[in-house]
Amino acid sequence: MMKKVAVILSGCGVYDGAEIHESVLTLLHLELQQASYQCFAPDCLQHHVINHRTGDEMPEQRNVLTEAARIARGAIAPLTELQVADFDAVILPGGFGAAKNLSDFAFKGAEATVLPELQQKLAAFASAGKPVGFICIAPALIPRIYPAPVSLTIGTDATTATAIEQMGAQHVHCQVQDIVIDHQAKVVSTPAYMLAQSVAEANAGIEKLVAAVLRLA
Amino acid sequence: MMKKVAVILSGCGVYDGAEIHESVLTLLHLELQQASYQCFAPDCLQHHVINHRTGDEMPEQRNVLTEAARIARGAIAPLTELQVADFDAVILPGGFGAAKNLSDFAFKGAEATVLPELQQKLAAFASAGKPVGFICIAPALIPRIYPAPVSLTIGTDATTATAIEQMGAQHVHCQVQDIVIDHQAKVVSTPAYMLAQSVAEANAGIEKLVAAVLRLA
Repeated sequence: MMKKVAVILSGCGVYDGAEIHESVLTLLHLELQQASYQCFAPDCLQHHVINHRTGDEMPEQRNVLTEAARIARGAIAPLTELQVADFDAVILPGGFGAAKNLSDFAFKGAEATVLPELQQKLAAFASAGKPVGFICIAPALIPRIYPAPVSLTIGTDATTATAIEQMGAQHVHCQVQDIVIDHQAKVVSTPAYMLAQSVAEANAGIEKLVAAVLRLA
Repeated sequence: MMKKVAVILSGCGVYDGAEIHESVLTLLHLELQQASYQCFAPDCLQHHVINHRTGDEMPEQRNVLTEAARIARGAIAPLTELQVADFDAVILPGGFGAAKNLSDFAFKGAEATVLPELQQKLAAFASAGKPVGFICIAPALIPRIYPAPVSLTIGTDATTATAIEQMGAQHVHCQVQDIVIDHQAKVVSTPAYMLAQSVAEANAGIEKLVAAVLRLA
């Protein structure tokens, strides 16, 4: 039976949305490992729009779902339509969108909250014992989803790791090509572009994360 | 000696810019095959902005270089700065951006012209005997760059193939996982999302295209 995985995107671009390389590599490795996927994103405005060439904020508004549709080539659904019963697992690529659109971790650190519709969906996957993979900065959401402390990684960044530990998780230092698995919670994480210097480095960790998520499913 | 490849992007998104999967897979396989790369894009407005969820045109203007910077994670330069002497090869991912922003093939078919700054750069690579890889719809630019007829593929679409033949090229039918090489012109092409039903299918052809371009360099 082909496993079905929901991939939750947060826009289209590392500085204000989903990290594009991480998102595409997630889809690639799901397919290469014989899983099917469906992309979802929340139908809401992005926190802001960043010019990815200069780093400056642009005087524009863009919708998270509409922009994420670029990565999904149009094949995307609103997050509200995600039915837990229809999927064996979830994967969240990183990018600042996870910390600005899916949560406010980029602004509030240890005081962050998760977008309510996402919080509810992920809590339902956790309750159902279905595995979830978190890439790059997305693991910052984990302590708000899982009641008991979960082992996770965002790589080696001390400030980010401290904030996540303050939220109640157990941070594990991890190299870019590796993953951290919490077998009890069925949570897998990998640093990707929290550490990666190249797309090939991100690729190595994401390939392992996808394999681990599918094994747990 | 590590080979250096210029990757020319045309925005960020299949319907109005560079096809995102093809672009990321090009960068991935360049790295996995021990080449380095630099992304470039023209600093001009996109032809239009398409809502990738609905297919409708949006009342916005976006800049090709600024949007392409999302795929390049900010590491991109204006096409005018591309120096032929600094690179061993060029690769152009597809997406409608190649046919709407880099040329007007989407609107004029066999009467299409190429953006003058791109035409000039690619002609210089051709004159220097340096290989160029064209993915998806990007091969539609080839007849405007190379004086003699070049063998190329855009897959199997008869209407597109006919237009390209009217422009003076020799179209070769090709399956999604395969490539067409014109050894004399040092031109490599692959259908990618002209035919691909999945990212894994596009990946197979792009991996081969990158290998062939690097062998010819």
